[in-house]
Amino acid sequence: MLQSKTHDIIRFGIGSPGADAIPAALSTVGAQVVRDSASGVFDYGPTEGDAGLRAAVLGFFRRRHFAIEENELLITSGGMQGLDLVAKLFIGAGDLIVVESPTYTNGSAVVRSYEGELLEVPVDGNGMDVDSLAAQVAESGRTPKAIYTIPNFQNPAGVTLSLDRRRRLLDLAHRWGSLIIEDDPYGDLRFAGESLPSLAELADGRVLVVGVYTFSKVLAPGLRVGWVTAPAEVIAKMIDARQGMDTCTNVPLQRLVAGVVADGTLDEHLVHLRDLYQERRSVMLSALAEIFGDLGAIWTVPDGGFFIWLTLPEGCDMQKLLEPAVDHGVAYIPGTAFTAVPGRFTSAARLCYATTPPARIREGVQRLRDVVVAAYPWLVAPGTAR
Amino acid sequence: MLQSKTHDIIRFGIGSPGADAIPAALSTVGAQVVRDSASGVFDYGPTEGDAGLRAAVLGFFRRRHFAIEENELLITSGGMQGLDLVAKLFIGAGDLIVVESPTYTNGSAVVRSYEGELLEVPVDGNGMDVDSLAAQVAESGRTPKAIYTIPNFQNPAGVTLSLDRRRRLLDLAHRWGSLIIEDDPYGDLRFAGESLPSLAELADGRVLVVGVYTFSKVLAPGLRVGWVTAPAEVIAKMIDARQGMDTCTNVPLQRLVAGVVADGTLDEHLVHLRDLYQERRSVMLSALAEIFGDLGAIWTVPDGGFFIWLTLPEGCDMQKLLEPAVDHGVAYIPGTAFTAVPGRFTSAARLCYATTPPARIREGVQRLRDVVVAAYPWLVAPGTAR
Repeated sequence: MLQSKTHDIIRFGIGSPGADAIPAALSTVGAQVVRDSASGVFDYGPTEGDAGLRAAVLGFFRRRHFAIEENELLITSGGMQGLDLVAKLFIGAGDLIVVESPTYTNGSAVVRSYEGELLEVPVDGNGMDVDSLAAQVAESGRTPKAIYTIPNFQNPAGVTLSLDRRRRLLDLAHRWGSLIIEDDPYGDLRFAGESLPSLAELADGRVLVVGVYTFSKVLAPGLRVGWVTAPAEVIAKMIDARQGMDTCTNVPLQRLVAGVVADGTLDEHLVHLRDLYQERRSVMLSALAEIFGDLGAIWTVPDGGFFIWLTLPEGCDMQKLLEPAVDHGVAYIPGTAFTAVPGRFTSAARLCYATTPPARIREGVQRLRDVVVAAYPWLVAPGTAR
Repeated sequence: MLQSKTHDIIRFGIGSPGADAIPAALSTVGAQVVRDSASGVFDYGPTEGDAGLRAAVLGFFRRRHFAIEENELLITSGGMQGLDLVAKLFIGAGDLIVVESPTYTNGSAVVRSYEGELLEVPVDGNGMDVDSLAAQVAESGRTPKAIYTIPNFQNPAGVTLSLDRRRRLLDLAHRWGSLIIEDDPYGDLRFAGESLPSLAELADGRVLVVGVYTFSKVLAPGLRVGWVTAPAEVIAKMIDARQGMDTCTNVPLQRLVAGVVADGTLDEHLVHLRDLYQERRSVMLSALAEIFGDLGAIWTVPDGGFFIWLTLPEGCDMQKLLEPAVDHGVAYIPGTAFTAVPGRFTSAARLCYATTPPARIREGVQRLRDVVVAAYPWLVAPGTAR
């Protein structure tokens, strides 16, 4: 019988930055911003975003990616709203929409909320399998309206779309006339390997790419501040749509973000975060090698971001195991949460290393093994019955 | 030739609180909230709203209206998002949706964004004309899916739906099985007459009423914090929908609002605002009586809120006059902005008295007269040609 540790849960489940990853400047700059009440900080802001934040994001984006024009940018209420906006504009009932498999469930939920039809394309260690994509689309007899991808350190699989695949994905999108929705919440959190150009940059105007970005993972999710990049005519339509959604993003926290982007706090903080997450990833990878090495499990090796995708041998049911796992003091998200295909990813789990201090990560992995082995003893004694 | 005063515009156009109507506590409480970074203020919040704000709103709403259950409340990113949510859930292509005429354009824009078909029902001094509503619905040969109304100090007409009409509106909605969307941004800003029970309260469960509220007019619009009340099963669906919209409302400003609601600041501030707006309304009404009295104009007399609806004699085009008016230093919103019916409200304008200090209101009304008379001299010399 496993010991109950519900008082002391190690949280590999939730995909948000830990409390120790929130920069102190949010408090100091935030306090300055709300004190300056004469600045209009409490008034309605422009729907396209506060001028100061727009300037700061344009500069940040240019340094990180490539130069965009002012009218190719929209500030949003978090990355999710970016996804909602692009879906609202482009996705209608019955449209075929490609998503990764596994995929970010809130992303595919947006597609479904506009009655789009999902085509799930498997990912491997190099991101979405574009050969499979081509084959699945051919088989479907239709061309996709849009392709939704998280190219960097994908949620939930942690994998990155290779440069070669980026180019081939763009070729396919060009041939089909498909829109690409490039969701990139983690791109600035690369701690290994070389930065790859974004799909938007590689497309160079040949394919319509809407880029969806957020400050949730690099500053804090509670701010609800993100941005979208797209051709000017798409941004103009999104601004119109926002009028009937939430009018504008809250002004005080836009100014807070503008402050910490403009004064260099974010750049410095990113250096810190990359070290922090690299260490946590490495600790989790070592723990998995040591503690799961004899179970026939496999896992991905992310070059950045928050997530490792763990797959146990067939016959293990990670959804069924969640309750005993939480009772034994470790949480994760079962793989089945990241697909709409019944029976897929039953033996998989998303593990987030970002939120847990290194010293606790090993303990969490050990607890997970305890639970797995207690439920499936045949994993360690191959002769026994399943 | 009128003098150009574009350096010094008196803004009767925009419908937001003036800088002098923003409570200082937003700065002090806001600074406290963001300093307390260990409280999870920068983390994702629950989709239904931060617990502290939910408790504060439940108390505030109970004192002001009637008791609702915890699961009948959803915190939203401003009132607009409340409208978007109810439309997303209930309005589909071709649904007949009743709106007031004139109506709040962003409200009717939301209806249209879900491809609802508008039925504009005239308002008079007692709000929506329910006899006309019954007749127009009968004539249409269909029953409305929803009725969208701003019952208190309506935007843009400033009028209030009488108690008798509230009851008859509910009877009609009950007979038709229509949903009522009760948009009440100004209800707490009554400075004359007696408070009327909300449609939700009068419905007493007999008709489905979704109440849409916001802190934009009583605290500050830049916060983007509002709330929705509805039966628990509707709120549950809205929470699901929010997951694919903006996930949750930003946490720091929810906590700010929770602070100023819970500590009594809002109640005190409402007393101040009612005095402030009553004075401004009275100054504008006096100025209109004195300055527009000989032009054959009529205007509404609001018991609260922000707006007076001014109607000039037929033949005046207030949309055409906007540019010369702004050039002469006074802004307003032309009546045509509040209807989708071509040719309607051409000679009308929405005047917002809330944003302008009393000493300037008279000057603004005078400027407006100057512009009107310069363009339509026949108003003051009835013998001359139009």
